[in-house]
This record gives sequence, C-alpha cells and structure tokens, in this order.
Amino acid sequence: MPSANQHIAIAGAGLVGSLLSIYLAKRGHNVSVFERRPDMRQATTDRGRSINLALSNRGLRALEEVGLAEELKKVAIPMHGRTMHDRQGQLTFQPYGKEGQYINSVSRSNLNIVLMNKAEALGVKFYFNHRIASVDFETTTLLLQNQESKIESHKFNAIIGADGAFSAVRGSMQITDRFDYEQNYIAHGYKELHIPAGATGNFQLEKNSLHIWPRESFMLIALPNPDGSFTGTLFFPFEGKQSFDSITTKTEAEFFLKEIFPDAFALMENPAESFMSSPASSLVTVKCFPWTKNKTLLIGDAAHAIVPFYGQGMNAGFEDCRLLNEWLEKTMEWNEIFSEFQRQRKPDTDAIADLALHNFIEMRDLVGDSKFLLRKKIEARFNQHFPEKWIPLYTMVTFSDDIRYSRALAIGQKQKKIMDEVMQTPNIETTWEQLDFEAIVSKL
Amino acid sequence: MPSANQHIAIAGAGLVGSLLSIYLAKRGHNVSVFERRPDMRQATTDRGRSINLALSNRGLRALEEVGLAEELKKVAIPMHGRTMHDRQGQLTFQPYGKEGQYINSVSRSNLNIVLMNKAEALGVKFYFNHRIASVDFETTTLLLQNQESKIESHKFNAIIGADGAFSAVRGSMQITDRFDYEQNYIAHGYKELHIPAGATGNFQLEKNSLHIWPRESFMLIALPNPDGSFTGTLFFPFEGKQSFDSITTKTEAEFFLKEIFPDAFALMENPAESFMSSPASSLVTVKCFPWTKNKTLLIGDAAHAIVPFYGQGMNAGFEDCRLLNEWLEKTMEWNEIFSEFQRQRKPDTDAIADLALHNFIEMRDLVGDSKFLLRKKIEARFNQHFPEKWIPLYTMVTFSDDIRYSRALAIGQKQKKIMDEVMQTPNIETTWEQLDFEAIVSKL
Repeated sequence: MPSANQHIAIAGAGLVGSLLSIYLAKRGHNVSVFERRPDMRQATTDRGRSINLALSNRGLRALEEVGLAEELKKVAIPMHGRTMHDRQGQLTFQPYGKEGQYINSVSRSNLNIVLMNKAEALGVKFYFNHRIASVDFETTTLLLQNQESKIESHKFNAIIGADGAFSAVRGSMQITDRFDYEQNYIAHGYKELHIPAGATGNFQLEKNSLHIWPRESFMLIALPNPDGSFTGTLFFPFEGKQSFDSITTKTEAEFFLKEIFPDAFALMENPAESFMSSPASSLVTVKCFPWTKNKTLLIGDAAHAIVPFYGQGMNAGFEDCRLLNEWLEKTMEWNEIFSEFQRQRKPDTDAIADLALHNFIEMRDLVGDSKFLLRKKIEARFNQHFPEKWIPLYTMVTFSDDIRYSRALAIGQKQKKIMDEVMQTPNIETTWEQLDFEAIVSKL
Repeated sequence: MPSANQHIAIAGAGLVGSLLSIYLAKRGHNVSVFERRPDMRQATTDRGRSINLALSNRGLRALEEVGLAEELKKVAIPMHGRTMHDRQGQLTFQPYGKEGQYINSVSRSNLNIVLMNKAEALGVKFYFNHRIASVDFETTTLLLQNQESKIESHKFNAIIGADGAFSAVRGSMQITDRFDYEQNYIAHGYKELHIPAGATGNFQLEKNSLHIWPRESFMLIALPNPDGSFTGTLFFPFEGKQSFDSITTKTEAEFFLKEIFPDAFALMENPAESFMSSPASSLVTVKCFPWTKNKTLLIGDAAHAIVPFYGQGMNAGFEDCRLLNEWLEKTMEWNEIFSEFQRQRKPDTDAIADLALHNFIEMRDLVGDSKFLLRKKIEARFNQHFPEKWIPLYTMVTFSDDIRYSRALAIGQKQKKIMDEVMQTPNIETTWEQLDFEAIVSKL
C-alpha cells in the first residue's frame, strides 16, 4: 500500500463514498469526503431518496470486512423470493435460491447514516454543501465551491470520485482526450407509490418477499419497510399508448392503477394523487473508460451506473470498495493501483450492466409465464443434484461473493443455451422429472 | 416548409454548416452562422486543418443541388482506385469501381471557402469569433460569447448545431434528461507527413490514386493535391510495442519510417522532424439520440462523428443537408420536421459509423492480402454480369447517392456470407472464372 497517512479526497458522501472512506481510514489515511448536498442526518427535509435497496452477498461481504454487517442485518428485512401478483390478484411465489438464501430490504438513508457515523468515528472528515467544480489531474487538485459559494483549491495524494451517475469528477475527465463514454436511457421511467402499514402496524402483503406485478411491457414492484409499509415503484414507459405521457389526469391515473393493479390499488394511500404529483424519474446506464487519470479514480455509479433490475447497483459499488482495498495491500503507487483496479474490474461492471438491463424483461414479463417458472424449477433441481456444477445465474450474481460478474454472465449464457434445448423436450411440463439430469448438467 | 423569412441560427461555419446555410438561404430564410474560430479566408495562420478529403457521389449530389458541383470538380483530383505499396516498394492497383467511377481528392479549406463565399452571396451572415455558450431549447435562444467576450442572447425560429464532433450545442443537450450519448476513441491516432511535388512540380507518385501502405496493424495513406504534392497520414497505435508512445527520438522515428515505408520515406521532406514535432491526433466515433429538442437540431459530425476510413464523414454530412432540405418541402413546423428527419436518418448514420470502423481493418490489413484482392475481383465480375443485382458494398456506399447506408450495410452483410462460401471453393485462385455466377448472385 502507499505509505499510511496519505491525504485522500473522496467526492460524494453516498453509500460507496462513505464505505470507501471507512476502508481508507482503517488503513491509517487522512480522508476528506466532499458532498454537494447538506448532511442528511441533520436536514429535516431531503433525507436523500426515500427508497429501499436489496442488499445481497457482495455488499454484505464488504460490510462484514468493515464490521458493520451484523448491525445492518438487524434492521434489514429478508426477502426469500418473488411474489407475483396477476391481474386477478392471484399470487405465485418463486424462491430466489435455496432454503436460507435471501436478499435484504434495507433503507438507503439508514444505511448511509450508519456508514457516515462509522466513518466519522474513525476520523474521516465530511464536508457537506461542497460542490466539485473541477479536478486538475496533473496535480491531483480538487477545485471546490464551498458553502459560501467561494472556490477553494486543495491538493491531495489521491482523489476518488464516488459522486454517482452524474459524477462531477467524471465530468472533468470527459473533457480530456481519448475518454470513452456512453450514457443510455431506457424507455421506461419510474414513480414511487406507497403502501402503508395496516391499522395495527401489520404488513398488508407477505413481509418476506419482493412483490412484483408483472404486466409484460411494464411492472409495479414493492419492497417491505420495517414499519410495516411497502415502498412501491411503478416502472412504466415515458411515451406510447400506455405511458406516463398518455395518463394526464387524476381520473385517468386512478382508472389505470385500479384496473391494472387491483390488489395493490386497494392497499395504497391516494395512489392517483401520488402518481400525478411527482414527475417520472429516468433510468440510465453509464459506461466509461478509463476510470483513472494519474492519481484520480472513479468508483461505483460514477464509473458504471446501472439500471436497478438486478438489485446490484449498490452491491457492485461495495464490491468495488472491497477489491480496491485488496489492491491497497500491494506496495504500489496510487496511479499503478488505480490502473490495475480498473483493468481487472471493468469487464465485471460491463457484465452486470448488461445483466441488469436483461433482468427487466425477466421481471416485467417472464416471471408471469408458466414456462419460465418451470424452467427455473428445473434449474433449481439441477442445482440441488449437482450443487457445485450447476449454479443458477441469479444465484451466482446474488448469493455468491466470489464469482466475478463477467464469469457469471458467461456461464449464464451457456446455461441458457442448454435450457433452451431442454425446454424443447416434448411434454416437458409433465416429463421433466424424467430428464437425464447428469447428462444435461455435464454439457455445461 | 415553414413560411419563408424565418430567422435561423447555424452553429459552425464548417463544411456542413456552410452548405446548410446555402440551402436555407435559397428557401428565403434569414440565416446567421456563428463560428468560434476566425474567418479562415482572412486568417494568415490557422486556415483550418490542411487536410484533403475524398468527395464522392453523396456529397456531390448535394453540391449539384446548390449549383457548386461543376466549380468544385475543376479543382478536384479524381482517384480511380487504391495503389498499395508493400515493404519492398512493389505496387498493386485495385480499382474502386467500374471504368469512370472515382472519388475526388479535394482540399477541405478550399471547399469550405467556396461554400462560405456562395452563402454570403445569397445573403447569409457569418459571425466569426463567436462561441456558443449554451442553448435554451424551450425558447430557441442562443447564448453567445462574442469577440469582446461579452455574452449575447439571441432568439431564433430554429437553431441548427453543425458545430462538429465536439459540438457545444450538443453539450447543452447532453445535460437535459434522457439524452443518449456515446463517444468512443479507437486505439490509433494520426500524424500528417508531407510528400512534396517533384523538382518540376510533378507528382512523385501516381496522381490519380489513393495510396496505401498497409502494414496490418497500422498504415500510411496519401492523397494528391493540385500543386503536385501529397498529404500523407500515418494511422498508428497510441500505445504498445510499435506505437507513437514507443518512438521517442528523431533517430527512432527516422529508423521506423525508413524501414517500414521505404519508398514513401525517400520522397518525404524531413519526415522524422515532422513526426516528432506534432502531437498525434485522436479519432472518435460519436453517436447520440435524440438529435433534436424542440426547434433545435444537431446535424453532421455534431450528431454523428465517424472515423475517416470510408471517406464518408463529409459526404454523410452533406447528405444530411440534402435530406433535411427535402423535409423542408412539407408544410410542417420546425420541431416536426426535425423529429421526422432524425427518425429517418439515424439508422443510416449508425450504419456508416460501423462501416467506417470496419473499413480501417480492410485498408490497413486486407488490401495487402491476395485472397482479399481476388475476392474483390470476383465481386467485380458479378457486378459486371449482373449490374442491377450485385453491387459491391464499396460501390453502394461511395458511388450511389440513393441507396441508404443502412440498406448498403444490410446487403453487404448478405454478400459477405455468400462470398465467404465462394472463397471456400477448392483452388478458387485458378477456377474462379468457372463459377456459376448466376446461381451465386441469385442467392442475394
């Protein structure tokens, strides 16, 4: 590692910036975190986005390393599978993995606060209301606009941009020569719809599930909160026949929600009003390369923002921190460490970006399809008989913390080819248990 | 068309901006062109980049429509094919198409001057040393920084960003929501190397050819100038074993050029000095969407910058102008015209971007390969026998002005599949004239 007590700047006090500051402080570095927004622990309004996230094994492994996993598991709600709701309110349950494998619904803002408190306890300094104006990569200098709108200039040993999908650090990199960059929006946006707790504080839907209302070209999902409520999110096209654009009055919104999601609608508080009062948010995938110039590095969403449909955005960012921390064991300069990190990590974040885009189709459409559910059931059986040999893609991504995303994607593609063939078997619905599991699995 | 005498701003007085201003002036509009640089007609230094371009049928068709084709043909140098130079200085010639089909070497700055002069004669106003600060898309207002560095604000009926690969108009679009954008650099850069005219003003290489020194992973090319000189361009990796990075002294540069391009080296003026004195320029592909917000449109490189290996950057930009002008026949509002234009045009500029990237491999590697040359010869024969049915891809792109790029790409992919099979024929080198041409061509 670079000698201890180096001055390091982190841009962004979000989940990834805060976690990284802990890793670096534990290594004896002098860490300053600059955040554009006010301190979410003090602000009465704007406590960050009120959403919850699915914390899974990759994220948990990093939290374990910094000693926070147990504390966070206590406030997390395990979700063992998906509960699908059809138009008649009929439910189907599909487990995510084996008994004991689950993802965790956690509040983004609570998690962020836990991380910031821990970082401060380790001596990390947070500077809120500080906006990154630009970065001088040659001299590793940050230009900051402080609370009084004055420009400050500070030199560091290393700068890490953990400032999210619209990263200002990346903005400075983007105007240097030969910086590959792409941002792609999907055709869908989202709006949040709240399902409150029942009269006795009870959960009005199965607590330990991620709920999905798959409707082919769009979907509603809901994740449980500790207070008995659910945060619902409607993913819906911006434009077209059935879209945010096409619904322009409260009456239309009410008609649409009631018609398409009858059981959810019945549980919501003023859903049509919520629908009309907030603008739809957009969903972007960002890829870029390089992630580093000299002693400045991009990490997390700043380097690779992805869509939320695999529940891996935060988990991938936390895994970034864990892997970067491993590189810090080596006796190398910052620029060398950053180069090695990006070289090794980039194929994996490209892979999870593509997996996340594809999973939207699975969630909104395929999970409502009986053939698809059968396919998952057969794969689960393969895994049961040959646990080392056949690990379903979802399990590799979500419940593993050591299979690289790029490897999971490659294996998943092979599995898909094999399963496409299997599903061609005549009368597969009734005969699947007679398949020669060993012969099939050995094709992988 | 929108009623005449509309106030239209064009950002950029380059080739595309100047040509578009002519089209719009001819329709009776009041056109202002804002250019960041000084007037290249007056500036003694910086007359724009000193390069020459390959003008072909798509570009010529637009120039014909505005009445400039004949004037420009007079100063253009026809290039009927490629002359390949191997390491021993041996030459091979490959025609681009049939007898009478050729591309035209023209000077970028001369062409630009002809266009600006014509535009001014039609009443277009050019404002040089005016930088676009930003665009307000809601009100179709340009914020400009003028010669005195003062900010001016002007409202227009429509704004068209023809301000190139690093477009400021696109910069303003990029920070609006849901703007898809990508910029990708190739691993190669380029430097120019001059081959002067001979002692009597004669051409030291065959005048009516595009010269290529293909060297598998890199290449040198040269295009003729009217004064008897050639502009040479070395396309070479930035990094790696043989690269701009690996050559760090004048002696190394001299050794490399002499060793790898012996016949060209012998004709150059101080090649090692030229090599060392200029930084390598980079090559980028830019794709984005949408191209329009309200009454502002991107066009040419601002919407779709491509690498130069198909000689289609300028031709595609001129075709943009011609097609936009066709839409202006309709009685539609600016925003509707711009929407229709982008919808129809986008697949074609995506196609030429991909074709241009692929053609680099053909130019630097395949053209030195005897199997590849045979393949081209067989395709030429197909075309000779079935001129309506089998048009080689290069011909569709270069010598057609009505086959859409996307269609050319799709047909080219089918042709490639057929030719891959043909080239598997045993002893194809000696037996190809006995092939059943009709049967093969009918597969297309």
